Amino acid sequence: MSDYSANMALSCPVPVGVSDLIRLGHGSGGKLTAQLIETVFLPELGNEVLNQLDDAALVSAGSTRLAVTTDAYVVNPIFFPGGDIGKLAVHGTVNDLSMRGAKPLYLAASFILEEGLRLADLKRIVKSMREACLESGVILIAGDTKVVNRGAADKIFITTTGIGVVEVDPAPSAVRAEVGDVVIASGDLGLHGMAIMCAREALELDTRIESDTASLHNLVAGLLTVGSSVHCLRDLTRGGLSSALNEIAVTSGTGIELDESVIPIHPEVQAACEILGLDPLYVASEGRLVAIVAPDHQGSALEQMRSNPLGRCATVIGRVVPSHSGRVVLKSRIGGHRILDKLSGEQLPRIC
Amino acid sequence: MSDYSANMALSCPVPVGVSDLIRLGHGSGGKLTAQLIETVFLPELGNEVLNQLDDAALVSAGSTRLAVTTDAYVVNPIFFPGGDIGKLAVHGTVNDLSMRGAKPLYLAASFILEEGLRLADLKRIVKSMREACLESGVILIAGDTKVVNRGAADKIFITTTGIGVVEVDPAPSAVRAEVGDVVIASGDLGLHGMAIMCAREALELDTRIESDTASLHNLVAGLLTVGSSVHCLRDLTRGGLSSALNEIAVTSGTGIELDESVIPIHPEVQAACEILGLDPLYVASEGRLVAIVAPDHQGSALEQMRSNPLGRCATVIGRVVPSHSGRVVLKSRIGGHRILDKLSGEQLPRIC
Repeated sequence: MSDYSANMALSCPVPVGVSDLIRLGHGSGGKLTAQLIETVFLPELGNEVLNQLDDAALVSAGSTRLAVTTDAYVVNPIFFPGGDIGKLAVHGTVNDLSMRGAKPLYLAASFILEEGLRLADLKRIVKSMREACLESGVILIAGDTKVVNRGAADKIFITTTGIGVVEVDPAPSAVRAEVGDVVIASGDLGLHGMAIMCAREALELDTRIESDTASLHNLVAGLLTVGSSVHCLRDLTRGGLSSALNEIAVTSGTGIELDESVIPIHPEVQAACEILGLDPLYVASEGRLVAIVAPDHQGSALEQMRSNPLGRCATVIGRVVPSHSGRVVLKSRIGGHRILDKLSGEQLPRIC
Repeated sequence: MSDYSANMALSCPVPVGVSDLIRLGHGSGGKLTAQLIETVFLPELGNEVLNQLDDAALVSAGSTRLAVTTDAYVVNPIFFPGGDIGKLAVHGTVNDLSMRGAKPLYLAASFILEEGLRLADLKRIVKSMREACLESGVILIAGDTKVVNRGAADKIFITTTGIGVVEVDPAPSAVRAEVGDVVIASGDLGLHGMAIMCAREALELDTRIESDTASLHNLVAGLLTVGSSVHCLRDLTRGGLSSALNEIAVTSGTGIELDESVIPIHPEVQAACEILGLDPLYVASEGRLVAIVAPDHQGSALEQMRSNPLGRCATVIGRVVPSHSGRVVLKSRIGGHRILDKLSGEQLPRIC
């Protein structure tokens, strides 16, 4: 071995394969996220509550049934048409509680701030959180602030944890999806994700697309008056409609069939998706949910949802079927079928 | 105005004063942190629970009294002698619940990962969290993972939120400190902070200083058998003993007087502090607490604490006094007095 190659051997670090490193796709909410959960988190930390992987965990404390959920928000940019990171963090956490049929009560928030963040920006975000809390009927009871040196974080990250009480029994859950159930979407898809992407890419479209971020607690409260026929609820965050339905299909062991011709997507969202090469069925809608409902309560569920401004355009988009268990299949406009798989990479990093 | 100056006016951003920006000191746990809380967070989000600023919030859910706390962990380096970011995150959150006399039950954890983090490092951290959970008697019920692009975070940040049930009434709280109470430290100070600093500065000392990170739930459970005379408990994280006692003095409106000659500090910690120009009374001890106890229960409190390995060296270090309300005063070895003020900058960024 020459001196040169000996020196190289000393100065070069041991090569690490890309499969040994965290990739953006591990945060997509798709295949790589599922793989990370299954191979890293559950083997060490798994238990019967965590293993359910629902939007919020249900546990007992004393004689009370609690719902608990936590989420980190790393959205970029931190201000976007229709909202900001603070509003999104409150809405997202309130919605995760609502999806388990819980009444949201309390929030805790931890802030990681980058040295050099403008105080005015922080104030604007905190003010926005206040408004979102008031509107959602929750109070913030605990907080924490850490500051890291310039370049060690990107402006601001917020983790919100929500606590609610569960008053319905059984609570909505992915395991309760049943063959024959209808799949209802509360409105059109993809607004949040495309608002972020357009802000990031500075796309100039004729009309500005705004995030649909909203607290869905009232929409859900109305829907739950229909009773225990509301089997499952999911908000459509990371990975959009396809990811939410894939999780439900896998967890319940059923198949889900969607009718492309009736899935509501605004023409501007569709156009922006086409420009960016994205599939709107995988794009986040922070103010939308899907409800899996027993067929005999389809009418009352739709009526309830449509009576709320956030569910005005609620519509049946598909059905739970006995075939292709664990999969979501799209019946296209021209009559073909295609499988809507989980995301295998990351099409929209830092969307929430 | 010349063309040149007109161009300058266009191309230069409006100058922003340093006082308009977040600084490292805003995360110190000292004066700037208090100022941020008072001027940014409380005016918007304040309520009777949040305003108490205790280690954990006490709230009701149904008929159950809950304690809730949240903390972001951004420690650098992520592995250090005696622990790692995962262990620290579990211990720190369990301890914040314990300080309110709560029995820790559940944890939620959110992870912000930097693209390129080694999976092996993440696995090691998660394994360490598992061990810390088992040892602390808590289960992790909810989690979330986000990935940000390379350079947008520093390896890994973890936010842990803890939920416990409060079975003592009244719960220990800073407001309950009373003139005449004794101040008991559970052991020697500064190990955690100096372990981090030595790891960061690659200080070569004869003996390796290890972090004292530990779950204090058993120590507290023993101490609480003494009864309601245990008025207040604080773990000694960011800002160390001085910051914890300053918070208690301000909240309770009492003065606190410490006797320097009896405050336990290991000679190696003292030596490392001198090399780095740090005051050990401001350095974090993640496995230590102070207890403020009614004087007639001093003996039984000490006995209880010393029966636990983590409180073996518990000792009375001072007293709550009627003079200099809201302040902590140190009686030095040579008989002088000096005020131990809140930290005004940041001496140890990213210590937890």
